[in-house]
Amino acid sequence: MERREVKEMKVLVINSGSSSIKYQLIEMEGERVLCKGIAERIGLDGSRLVHRVNEEKHVIEKDLPDHEEALKLVLNTLVDENLGVIKDLKEIDAVGHRVVHGGEKFKESVFVNEEVIKAIEEVSPLAPLHNPANLMGIKAAMKLLPGVPNVAVFDTAFHQTIPQKAYLYAIPYEYYEKYGVRRYGFHGTSHRYVSKRAAEILGKKLEELKIITCHIGNGASIAAVKHGKCVDTSMGFTPLEGLVMGTRSGDLDPAIPFFIMEKEGISPQEMYDILNKKSGVYGLSKGFSSDMRDIEEAALKGDEWCKLILDIYDYRIAKYIGAYAAAMNGVDAIVFTAGVGENSPITREDVCSYLEFLGVKLDKQKNEETIRGKEGIISTPDSRVKVLVVPTNEELMIARDTKEIVERLGKR
Amino acid sequence: MERREVKEMKVLVINSGSSSIKYQLIEMEGERVLCKGIAERIGLDGSRLVHRVNEEKHVIEKDLPDHEEALKLVLNTLVDENLGVIKDLKEIDAVGHRVVHGGEKFKESVFVNEEVIKAIEEVSPLAPLHNPANLMGIKAAMKLLPGVPNVAVFDTAFHQTIPQKAYLYAIPYEYYEKYGVRRYGFHGTSHRYVSKRAAEILGKKLEELKIITCHIGNGASIAAVKHGKCVDTSMGFTPLEGLVMGTRSGDLDPAIPFFIMEKEGISPQEMYDILNKKSGVYGLSKGFSSDMRDIEEAALKGDEWCKLILDIYDYRIAKYIGAYAAAMNGVDAIVFTAGVGENSPITREDVCSYLEFLGVKLDKQKNEETIRGKEGIISTPDSRVKVLVVPTNEELMIARDTKEIVERLGKR
Repeated sequence: MERREVKEMKVLVINSGSSSIKYQLIEMEGERVLCKGIAERIGLDGSRLVHRVNEEKHVIEKDLPDHEEALKLVLNTLVDENLGVIKDLKEIDAVGHRVVHGGEKFKESVFVNEEVIKAIEEVSPLAPLHNPANLMGIKAAMKLLPGVPNVAVFDTAFHQTIPQKAYLYAIPYEYYEKYGVRRYGFHGTSHRYVSKRAAEILGKKLEELKIITCHIGNGASIAAVKHGKCVDTSMGFTPLEGLVMGTRSGDLDPAIPFFIMEKEGISPQEMYDILNKKSGVYGLSKGFSSDMRDIEEAALKGDEWCKLILDIYDYRIAKYIGAYAAAMNGVDAIVFTAGVGENSPITREDVCSYLEFLGVKLDKQKNEETIRGKEGIISTPDSRVKVLVVPTNEELMIARDTKEIVERLGKR
Repeated sequence: MERREVKEMKVLVINSGSSSIKYQLIEMEGERVLCKGIAERIGLDGSRLVHRVNEEKHVIEKDLPDHEEALKLVLNTLVDENLGVIKDLKEIDAVGHRVVHGGEKFKESVFVNEEVIKAIEEVSPLAPLHNPANLMGIKAAMKLLPGVPNVAVFDTAFHQTIPQKAYLYAIPYEYYEKYGVRRYGFHGTSHRYVSKRAAEILGKKLEELKIITCHIGNGASIAAVKHGKCVDTSMGFTPLEGLVMGTRSGDLDPAIPFFIMEKEGISPQEMYDILNKKSGVYGLSKGFSSDMRDIEEAALKGDEWCKLILDIYDYRIAKYIGAYAAAMNGVDAIVFTAGVGENSPITREDVCSYLEFLGVKLDKQKNEETIRGKEGIISTPDSRVKVLVVPTNEELMIARDTKEIVERLGKR
């Protein structure tokens, strides 16, 4: 690979799902997003591209039979005379791909070659819905942008530093040996980004901090980040474990699904779907909503049941923070991010109300003000444990990793 | 019911299992155990009674076709000329029964009448192995000791103060309404006993303390006891949830059993049995042992794998303590009890090593010395959080409840 001029590097970030491709084109100097969008309903009726430049939104309706056609439309749009942001596809210096599952093989982001593609395929049984879709994006990019380097950034990679005592489940060990049943954790790119950013905001070295990062969105997970390395996280073998989520149960007595399957006369597959798609906030609210904004709004209007759901939701978060303080024998900072974490002062205040014993003191006004993409410290100056809000930016993290790996390889 | 002379009350405590009856005869003045024993292999070949008076052990081999016959042998032995400790069965003033599951109906111990028996039967679907066996003991006692009051003491009762936010799982709410799927918790009599005793040892009012009680035996659970009331506990709908146990998995990504069932081609019933009987310490040790004494011994001899199992086991306990400190927004005392809790300085020390951030300081020598039934404080005088060892005594708690209820009713 020839040496690249890195200063003006532009990275295309791709998050390829089973029927969609999300993308951002990022200029690394100044880390500026030139445009972003999503090709959706790929392979389905009504497929279309939603493309955003600055505040402008453009919708292109077009038949998109597969991921290659979808990415072709994305690339054409990037260089389109009216909608485009670059003149030539040659301006794309590298493509960074989100890949959900890296198994135990990938402990960090990697340059994509045939061997890497094979390895991603090999761990597909652990993420049968995601990894094959991620690979479709990678293969389309390799075909449509020949010669442009691709980098894979894994949701699981940041959690690969979790020690055995935290990643092994207390089940027959053969299931780990035979099938790789262990805690992997997800949202790793987000936990990595916000823990790093929190240290910057605090003006301290990441290597000296014990940070608990709370990625609270529709999917939600918490991580214990000790001196820059993840030592535990609440999602496990799959994204079902841990916190109460939009439609996922999170932690559960493992006996419960067996009891319900028998009582209801349903199959394991049906039960599994209920735990993933009909549980969590949705299940507790009797189908009212899976969106915490709806629950909060109703609670604020006096709905007692929605208040209880908030209590359950926040209590679970608080318990994990307590558990991870024990995991690290202390905590210096707690970081909230993602949809709920960035935008719900109520949840943040309620969670922190359990944590006074740790020395957490919330600045209520700062908490109220730090919403809609703002970042900052929301604890009082004398709070022993700092509490921060850091909007997550997984795309930027993917772009940075991509730039770094391409530069490193280019300098060889 | 006529008024009873309470000072010299003798209470027979019965713990009736599916093929055994454990018993203790306790003289309430001085709370002295007159004798204890077990009728075992009821309905099976090789049934026998093992009866202990002071340090003496007597074994009576006898065919015991059912619980009534077994209890008859127990009662005959109590008044036996050589092995007995009382002259006449009329000296038994009351019988206290352990009952595993009281559902939501029983928030405290109760005098047993027909209505209570019916209610215990009604919650049997929640404890199909235990409640029917407990009822066999109750019915045998009512028949063989006519006129003697019976009291039922429930494993679940102490946990009935747990608030909704801690007892509801994030699954469709209808499962709670239809089947009573919620956190019940177990070992309640033990958690109640040791939390009360810990307050006495500390010379403080139970109502002013936040206590975390760790019942760590072959089965294991932790409880958060705030001002004398349980507010959370690690066992849930069944005794499968929570800590790593002898053969039980404890907490697990709820997705894991589904994945393994499919890979192994096994039924839900087979999977459920594996999680209950082949997991935990047994499963992690690849079938070496379910007994932590064996694991500790091997670890002390340098076995790296057994050291890891200790790490996993202790780490899970420490995380729960952290979580429950958050649940109560603080903790004043941590209490260890049951087989491992009372006898393993290694586990206690390892668990406390995670908790320095709470202000836990262990007195290593006191920790080493407080084993084999000794009780006491094992933290240093300046430890902000006190750490205690309190040998559990569920039988005594059952006897005390029985005495109190009989006295209360007798005074009517």
